[in-house]
Amino acid sequence: MTYDDNNIFAKILRGELPTKKIYEDEYALAFPDISPQAPVHVLVIPKGKYISATDFGAKASPTEITGFYRALSHVAKLLNVEASGYRIICNAGPDSQQMVPHFHAHILGGRKMGHILAPKD
Amino acid sequence: MTYDDNNIFAKILRGELPTKKIYEDEYALAFPDISPQAPVHVLVIPKGKYISATDFGAKASPTEITGFYRALSHVAKLLNVEASGYRIICNAGPDSQQMVPHFHAHILGGRKMGHILAPKD
Repeated sequence: MTYDDNNIFAKILRGELPTKKIYEDEYALAFPDISPQAPVHVLVIPKGKYISATDFGAKASPTEITGFYRALSHVAKLLNVEASGYRIICNAGPDSQQMVPHFHAHILGGRKMGHILAPKD
Repeated sequence: MTYDDNNIFAKILRGELPTKKIYEDEYALAFPDISPQAPVHVLVIPKGKYISATDFGAKASPTEITGFYRALSHVAKLLNVEASGYRIICNAGPDSQQMVPHFHAHILGGRKMGHILAPKD
């Protein structure tokens, strides 16, 4: 599978689509999910062209991987959910219903979440 | 918060509790979740003493972070869910219902998952 330069996160990274930037550095960009499922629901994406978690974990350089996950921790702090708690979710491929083919991590927080990790509906 | 050396994943890492090792390298260990929520439900943990995703992302070395996320991608391949798809979930802190205070990533796959990422129940 080849990376699709026309996916919406690629357009956001190129500044062709507007977003509210919550955090940005050399490796990552964080912005609100357009269909929030919790009081805090933010997406963190790497700046490189990686389709999924598998792709990112296997192909990104150590600098990119470290930069991205340091940014993810930093964003959780910025969002004030570090103490109250939050869930990180990364969807990869059809069964997970990954919607945009650019690797992204959801950060969800601001309310209590249940024990069910992957509901069927 | 200080890392608790008596948490069950610390005991698994020290070989004091049995598990079925799915994958192990210098940085990570993967084993089945004892209460599986999908046909594939595996936990991947780093070998270092990190409480949560925040802790790991902020404090682990670049080598540990890269080693862990490379292992995570590798385990998804081993589990044969790379093509069909899978969800990675990391819980951090009270709102997420993180059960064990040693950072861990859930890999769920083997069936279609819904759009709801963090149900309340």
